[in-house]
Amino acid sequence: MKKFEEKTISTETIYQGKVIHLQVDEVTLPNGKTAKRELVKHPGAVAVIPITKDNKIVFVEQYRKPLEKSLIELPAGKLDEGESPLTAAVRELEEETGYTTTQLTYIASFYTSPGFADELMHLYITDQIEPLEYPASADEDEFVEVLELTLDEAKQYVEGERIHDAKTNYAILYLHALGEK
Amino acid sequence: MKKFEEKTISTETIYQGKVIHLQVDEVTLPNGKTAKRELVKHPGAVAVIPITKDNKIVFVEQYRKPLEKSLIELPAGKLDEGESPLTAAVRELEEETGYTTTQLTYIASFYTSPGFADELMHLYITDQIEPLEYPASADEDEFVEVLELTLDEAKQYVEGERIHDAKTNYAILYLHALGEK
Repeated sequence: MKKFEEKTISTETIYQGKVIHLQVDEVTLPNGKTAKRELVKHPGAVAVIPITKDNKIVFVEQYRKPLEKSLIELPAGKLDEGESPLTAAVRELEEETGYTTTQLTYIASFYTSPGFADELMHLYITDQIEPLEYPASADEDEFVEVLELTLDEAKQYVEGERIHDAKTNYAILYLHALGEK
Repeated sequence: MKKFEEKTISTETIYQGKVIHLQVDEVTLPNGKTAKRELVKHPGAVAVIPITKDNKIVFVEQYRKPLEKSLIELPAGKLDEGESPLTAAVRELEEETGYTTTQLTYIASFYTSPGFADELMHLYITDQIEPLEYPASADEDEFVEVLELTLDEAKQYVEGERIHDAKTNYAILYLHALGEK
Protein backbone atom coordinates (compact mmCIF):
# COMPACT_ATOMS: atom_id res chain seq x y z
CA MET A 1 0.00 0.00 0.00
CA LYS A 2 1.24 3.43 -0.94
CA LYS A 3 -1.28 5.59 0.93
CA PHE A 4 0.16 9.03 1.73
CA GLU A 5 3.22 8.12 -0.34
CA GLU A 6 6.28 10.30 0.17
CA LYS A 7 8.13 10.59 -3.12
CA THR A 8 11.92 10.81 -2.97
CA ILE A 9 13.44 14.01 -4.35
CA SER A 10 17.01 13.23 -3.32
CA THR A 11 18.97 10.77 -1.21
CA GLU A 12 22.11 11.62 0.73
CA THR A 13 24.22 8.77 2.08
CA ILE A 14 25.53 9.84 5.48
CA TYR A 15 27.28 6.67 6.65
CA GLN A 16 27.90 3.13 5.46
CA GLY A 17 28.75 0.94 8.40
CA LYS A 18 29.27 -2.72 9.19
CA VAL A 19 25.72 -3.26 10.48
CA ILE A 20 23.73 -0.20 9.43
CA HIS A 21 23.72 2.51 6.79
CA LEU A 22 22.28 5.97 7.38
CA GLN A 23 20.73 8.06 4.63
CA VAL A 24 18.68 11.25 4.63
CA ASP A 25 16.00 11.54 1.96
CA GLU A 26 14.28 14.73 0.92
CA VAL A 27 10.68 13.85 0.08
CA THR A 28 7.53 15.38 -1.37
CA LEU A 29 4.63 15.05 1.07
CA PRO A 30 1.00 14.36 0.05
CA ASN A 31 0.27 18.11 0.41
CA GLY A 32 3.08 19.04 -1.98
CA LYS A 33 5.44 20.33 0.70
CA THR A 34 8.85 18.83 1.30
CA ALA A 35 10.39 17.21 4.35
CA LYS A 36 13.52 15.32 5.37
CA ARG A 37 13.47 11.69 6.46
CA GLU A 38 16.33 10.07 8.39
CA LEU A 39 16.51 6.39 7.39
CA VAL A 40 18.56 3.58 8.90
CA LYS A 41 19.06 0.72 6.45
CA HIS A 42 19.53 -2.70 8.07
CA PRO A 43 19.91 -6.14 6.44
CA GLY A 44 17.11 -7.70 8.52
CA ALA A 45 17.35 -10.04 11.49
CA VAL A 46 16.21 -13.34 12.92
CA ALA A 47 15.43 -14.64 16.39
CA VAL A 48 14.71 -18.15 17.64
CA ILE A 49 12.72 -19.45 20.61
CA PRO A 50 14.61 -22.69 21.42
CA ILE A 51 12.78 -25.01 23.83
CA THR A 52 14.72 -27.79 25.57
CA LYS A 53 13.43 -31.34 26.19
CA ASP A 54 12.67 -30.36 29.81
CA ASN A 55 10.62 -27.39 28.59
CA LYS A 56 13.06 -24.58 29.32
CA ILE A 57 13.65 -21.63 27.02
CA VAL A 58 17.21 -21.00 25.90
CA PHE A 59 18.28 -17.35 26.17
CA VAL A 60 21.57 -15.54 25.75
CA GLU A 61 22.92 -12.69 27.82
CA GLN A 62 25.10 -10.12 26.09
CA TYR A 63 26.27 -6.56 26.49
CA ARG A 64 24.32 -4.07 24.42
CA LYS A 65 26.51 -1.06 23.83
CA PRO A 66 23.63 1.27 22.79
CA LEU A 67 22.08 0.69 26.26
CA GLU A 68 25.37 0.40 28.22
CA LYS A 69 24.06 -2.71 29.95
CA SER A 70 23.60 -6.41 29.34
CA LEU A 71 20.24 -7.89 28.36
CA ILE A 72 18.88 -11.42 28.34
CA GLU A 73 17.43 -12.06 24.90
CA LEU A 74 16.46 -14.76 22.46
CA PRO A 75 19.37 -15.97 20.34
CA ALA A 76 19.25 -13.58 17.40
CA GLY A 77 21.30 -11.77 14.85
CA LYS A 78 21.37 -10.01 11.54
CA LEU A 79 21.19 -11.66 8.14
CA ASP A 80 24.46 -12.11 6.30
CA GLU A 81 24.50 -10.89 2.71
CA GLY A 82 22.33 -13.13 0.53
CA GLU A 83 21.38 -15.34 3.48
CA SER A 84 17.82 -16.59 3.96
CA PRO A 85 16.11 -15.96 7.32
CA LEU A 86 15.83 -19.71 7.96
CA THR A 87 19.54 -20.30 7.35
CA ALA A 88 20.44 -17.32 9.52
CA ALA A 89 18.18 -18.58 12.31
CA VAL A 90 19.96 -21.96 12.42
CA ARG A 91 23.37 -20.26 12.24
CA GLU A 92 22.62 -17.85 15.08
CA LEU A 93 21.18 -20.66 17.21
CA GLU A 94 24.39 -22.66 16.69
CA GLU A 95 26.81 -19.75 17.18
CA GLU A 96 25.13 -18.30 20.26
CA THR A 97 23.79 -21.34 22.14
CA GLY A 98 25.75 -24.40 20.98
CA TYR A 99 22.46 -26.09 20.04
CA THR A 100 21.32 -26.93 16.54
CA THR A 101 18.01 -27.94 14.99
CA THR A 102 16.58 -29.28 11.77
CA GLN A 103 13.06 -28.09 12.51
CA LEU A 104 12.15 -24.43 12.87
CA THR A 105 8.56 -23.20 12.81
CA TYR A 106 7.92 -19.65 11.62
CA ILE A 107 5.88 -17.54 14.03
CA ALA A 108 5.84 -13.98 12.72
CA SER A 109 7.88 -11.18 11.27
CA PHE A 110 7.70 -7.51 12.21
CA TYR A 111 9.50 -4.24 11.63
CA THR A 112 11.23 -3.25 14.83
CA SER A 113 11.26 0.56 14.38
CA PRO A 114 9.36 1.51 11.21
CA GLY A 115 9.61 5.22 11.97
CA PHE A 116 13.34 5.37 11.29
CA ALA A 117 14.63 1.91 10.30
CA ASP A 118 13.81 -0.84 7.82
CA GLU A 119 14.94 -3.70 10.06
CA LEU A 120 12.56 -6.66 9.64
CA MET A 121 12.76 -9.30 12.39
CA HIS A 122 11.80 -12.91 11.59
CA LEU A 123 10.84 -15.02 14.60
CA TYR A 124 10.99 -18.84 14.76
CA ILE A 125 10.36 -21.48 17.42
CA THR A 126 11.68 -25.02 17.87
CA ASP A 127 11.36 -27.68 20.54
CA GLN A 128 13.68 -29.99 18.59
CA ILE A 129 17.18 -28.93 19.60
CA GLU A 130 20.34 -30.96 20.08
CA PRO A 131 23.74 -29.91 21.47
CA LEU A 132 26.32 -29.54 18.70
CA GLU A 133 29.14 -32.06 18.92
CA TYR A 134 31.60 -29.38 17.81
CA PRO A 135 30.18 -26.01 18.87
CA ALA A 136 30.36 -23.25 16.25
CA SER A 137 32.37 -20.23 17.21
CA ALA A 138 30.58 -16.93 17.68
CA ASP A 139 31.62 -13.75 15.91
CA GLU A 140 35.04 -12.77 17.23
CA ASP A 141 33.67 -9.56 18.76
CA GLU A 142 30.63 -11.20 20.37
CA PHE A 143 30.51 -12.44 23.97
CA VAL A 144 27.40 -14.28 25.09
CA GLU A 145 26.36 -16.48 27.99
CA VAL A 146 23.63 -19.09 27.67
CA LEU A 147 20.76 -19.28 30.19
CA GLU A 148 17.96 -21.83 30.27
CA LEU A 149 14.85 -20.56 32.06
CA THR A 150 11.33 -21.79 32.68
CA LEU A 151 8.54 -19.57 31.37
CA ASP A 152 7.77 -18.45 34.94
CA GLU A 153 11.41 -17.53 35.49
CA ALA A 154 11.44 -15.64 32.19
CA LYS A 155 8.35 -13.68 33.28
CA GLN A 156 10.22 -12.68 36.44
CA TYR A 157 13.11 -11.45 34.31
CA VAL A 158 10.61 -9.34 32.36
CA GLU A 159 9.33 -7.89 35.64
CA GLY A 160 12.89 -7.03 36.64
CA GLU A 161 13.62 -5.61 33.17
CA ARG A 162 16.56 -7.97 32.59
CA ILE A 163 14.45 -9.14 29.65
CA HIS A 164 13.50 -5.87 28.04
CA ASP A 165 13.38 -6.00 24.26
CA ALA A 166 10.63 -6.29 21.70
CA LYS A 167 11.36 -9.72 20.21
CA THR A 168 11.98 -11.40 23.58
CA ASN A 169 9.00 -9.80 25.32
CA TYR A 170 6.88 -10.82 22.31
CA ALA A 171 8.16 -14.40 22.58
CA ILE A 172 7.32 -14.66 26.27
CA LEU A 173 3.83 -13.28 25.66
CA TYR A 174 3.49 -15.79 22.80
CA LEU A 175 4.45 -18.72 25.05
CA HIS A 176 2.14 -17.39 27.77
CA ALA A 177 -0.75 -17.25 25.27
CA LEU A 178 0.04 -20.80 24.10
CA GLY A 179 -0.13 -21.99 27.69
CA GLU A 180 -3.55 -20.37 28.19
CA LYS A 181 -5.10 -22.53 25.49
CA MET B 1 24.05 -5.46 34.77
CA LYS B 2 27.40 -4.86 33.14
CA LYS B 3 28.30 -8.45 32.18
CA PHE B 4 30.73 -8.51 29.24
CA GLU B 5 30.99 -4.71 29.48
CA GLU B 6 32.44 -2.95 26.47
CA LYS B 7 34.39 0.09 27.67
CA THR B 8 34.35 3.15 25.44
CA ILE B 9 37.74 4.24 24.09
CA SER B 10 36.42 6.98 21.81
CA THR B 11 33.14 8.29 20.42
CA GLU B 12 32.70 9.81 16.98
CA THR B 13 29.50 11.70 16.25
CA ILE B 14 28.53 10.93 12.66
CA TYR B 15 25.17 12.70 12.37
CA GLN B 16 22.82 14.71 14.54
CA GLY B 17 19.34 14.62 13.04
CA LYS B 18 15.81 15.64 13.91
CA VAL B 19 14.79 12.19 15.16
CA ILE B 20 18.02 10.21 15.53
CA HIS B 21 21.71 10.72 16.12
CA LEU B 22 24.37 8.33 14.86
CA GLN B 23 27.66 7.75 16.63
CA VAL B 24 30.43 5.20 16.25
CA ASP B 25 32.20 4.10 19.41
CA GLU B 26 35.50 2.30 19.59
CA VAL B 27 35.33 -0.12 22.52
CA THR B 28 37.51 -2.50 24.51
CA LEU B 29 36.03 -6.00 24.50
CA PRO B 30 36.12 -8.42 27.48
CA ASN B 31 39.12 -10.19 25.85
CA GLY B 32 41.07 -6.93 25.60
CA LYS B 33 40.66 -6.53 21.84
CA THR B 34 38.96 -3.53 20.31
CA ALA B 35 35.88 -3.25 18.09
CA LYS B 36 33.64 -0.58 16.59
CA ARG B 37 30.00 -0.18 17.53
CA GLU B 38 27.49 1.76 15.42
CA LEU B 39 24.92 3.34 17.73
CA VAL B 40 21.67 5.09 16.89
CA LYS B 41 20.55 7.41 19.68
CA HIS B 42 16.79 7.94 19.89
CA PRO B 43 14.73 9.92 22.45
CA GLY B 44 12.40 7.00 23.20
CA ALA B 45 8.83 6.43 22.09
CA VAL B 46 5.31 5.67 23.24
CA ALA B 47 2.39 3.71 21.82
CA VAL B 48 -1.21 3.45 22.97
CA ILE B 49 -3.83 0.71 22.56
CA PRO B 50 -7.07 2.78 22.49
CA ILE B 51 -10.25 0.71 22.86
CA THR B 52 -13.61 2.28 21.90
CA LYS B 53 -16.86 1.83 23.82
CA ASP B 54 -17.96 -0.77 21.23
CA ASN B 55 -14.72 -2.71 21.80
CA LYS B 56 -12.84 -1.74 18.67
CA ILE B 57 -9.13 -0.92 18.58
CA VAL B 58 -8.13 2.45 17.17
CA PHE B 59 -5.23 2.27 14.69
CA VAL B 60 -3.60 4.75 12.37
CA GLU B 61 -2.34 4.18 8.87
CA GLN B 62 0.68 6.15 7.72
CA TYR B 63 3.43 6.03 5.14
CA ARG B 64 6.72 4.69 6.48
CA LYS B 65 9.51 6.01 4.31
CA PRO B 66 12.11 3.46 5.50
CA LEU B 67 9.83 0.70 4.16
CA GLU B 68 8.43 2.62 1.15
CA LYS B 69 4.92 1.51 2.08
CA SER B 70 2.13 2.39 4.51
CA LEU B 71 1.52 0.40 7.67
CA ILE B 72 -1.40 0.19 10.06
CA GLU B 73 -0.05 0.73 13.57
CA LEU B 74 -0.98 1.77 17.06
CA PRO B 75 -0.99 5.53 17.56
CA ALA B 76 2.60 6.19 18.57
CA GLY B 77 5.44 8.64 18.42
CA LYS B 78 8.67 9.79 19.89
CA LEU B 79 9.12 11.66 23.14
CA ASP B 80 9.59 15.40 22.89
CA GLU B 81 12.55 16.78 24.82
CA GLY B 82 11.90 16.57 28.56
CA GLU B 83 8.49 14.98 28.03
CA SER B 84 7.30 12.07 30.20
CA PRO B 85 6.10 8.90 28.46
CA LEU B 86 2.60 9.33 29.90
CA THR B 87 2.30 12.91 28.62
CA ALA B 88 3.63 11.86 25.23
CA ALA B 89 1.14 8.99 25.06
CA VAL B 90 -1.83 11.32 25.60
CA ARG B 91 -0.41 13.83 23.11
CA GLU B 92 0.14 11.23 20.39
CA LEU B 93 -3.33 9.77 20.98
CA GLU B 94 -4.85 13.24 20.56
CA GLU B 95 -2.75 14.27 17.56
CA GLU B 96 -3.10 11.05 15.62
CA THR B 97 -6.63 9.84 16.42
CA GLY B 98 -8.69 12.83 17.63
CA TYR B 99 -9.47 10.95 20.85
CA THR B 100 -8.28 11.84 24.31
CA THR B 101 -8.17 10.05 27.64
CA THR B 102 -7.55 10.69 31.32
CA GLN B 103 -6.82 7.06 32.10
CA LEU B 104 -3.88 5.17 30.64
CA THR B 105 -2.69 1.85 32.02
CA TYR B 106 0.97 0.94 31.56
CA ILE B 107 1.55 -2.48 29.96
CA ALA B 108 5.25 -2.81 29.24
CA SER B 109 8.33 -1.16 27.84
CA PHE B 110 10.91 -2.71 25.57
CA TYR B 111 13.93 -1.79 23.50
CA THR B 112 13.00 -2.09 19.84
CA SER B 113 16.45 -2.85 18.37
CA PRO B 114 19.01 -3.21 21.16
CA GLY B 115 21.73 -4.33 18.75
CA PHE B 116 22.09 -0.90 17.17
CA ALA B 117 19.65 1.57 18.79
CA ASP B 118 18.69 2.75 22.27
CA GLU B 119 15.03 3.41 21.43
CA LEU B 120 12.84 2.37 24.37
CA MET B 121 9.13 1.95 23.57
CA HIS B 122 6.55 2.45 26.35
CA LEU B 123 3.19 0.79 25.73
CA TYR B 124 -0.13 1.84 27.31
CA ILE B 125 -3.76 0.76 27.01
CA THR B 126 -7.03 2.59 27.65
CA ASP B 127 -10.69 1.76 27.18
CA GLN B 128 -11.68 5.24 28.40
CA ILE B 129 -11.43 7.45 25.31
CA GLU B 130 -13.52 10.43 24.22
CA PRO B 131 -13.49 12.36 20.94
CA LEU B 132 -11.79 15.74 21.32
CA GLU B 133 -14.14 18.68 20.83
CA TYR B 134 -11.38 20.57 19.04
CA PRO B 135 -9.04 18.01 17.50
CA ALA B 136 -5.32 18.66 17.95
CA SER B 137 -3.35 19.09 14.77
CA ALA B 138 -0.77 16.51 13.88
CA ASP B 139 2.83 17.41 13.08
CA GLU B 140 2.85 19.40 9.87
CA ASP B 141 4.77 16.70 8.01
CA GLU B 142 2.64 13.81 9.28
CA PHE B 143 -0.33 12.33 7.39
CA VAL B 144 -2.37 9.65 9.14
CA GLU B 145 -5.75 7.99 8.67
CA VAL B 146 -7.67 6.52 11.59
CA LEU B 147 -9.10 2.97 11.43
CA GLU B 148 -11.19 1.24 14.07
CA LEU B 149 -10.98 -2.56 13.90
CA THR B 150 -12.23 -5.49 15.93
CA LEU B 151 -9.55 -7.81 17.30
CA ASP B 152 -10.49 -10.43 14.67
CA GLU B 153 -10.13 -7.85 11.91
CA ALA B 154 -6.78 -6.78 13.33
CA LYS B 155 -5.59 -10.41 13.30
CA GLN B 156 -6.52 -10.58 9.61
CA TYR B 157 -4.43 -7.47 8.98
CA VAL B 158 -1.52 -9.21 10.70
CA GLU B 159 -2.00 -12.22 8.41
CA GLY B 160 -1.93 -9.92 5.39
CA GLU B 161 1.10 -8.04 6.76
CA ARG B 162 -0.68 -4.68 6.71
CA ILE B 163 -0.01 -4.78 10.45
CA HIS B 164 3.64 -5.68 10.56
CA ASP B 165 5.55 -3.96 13.34
CA ALA B 166 6.77 -5.01 16.75
CA LYS B 167 4.66 -2.79 19.03
CA THR B 168 1.42 -3.41 17.11
CA ASN B 169 1.93 -7.16 16.72
CA TYR B 170 2.75 -7.28 20.45
CA ALA B 171 -0.46 -5.38 21.25
CA ILE B 172 -2.63 -7.75 19.23
CA LEU B 173 -1.03 -10.76 20.90
CA TYR B 174 -1.60 -9.05 24.26
CA LEU B 175 -5.31 -8.52 23.54
CA HIS B 176 -5.56 -12.09 22.25
CA ALA B 177 -4.00 -13.40 25.48
CA LEU B 178 -6.40 -11.24 27.55
CA GLY B 179 -9.33 -12.79 25.68
CA GLU B 180 -8.11 -16.30 26.39
CA LYS B 181 -8.42 -15.79 30.14
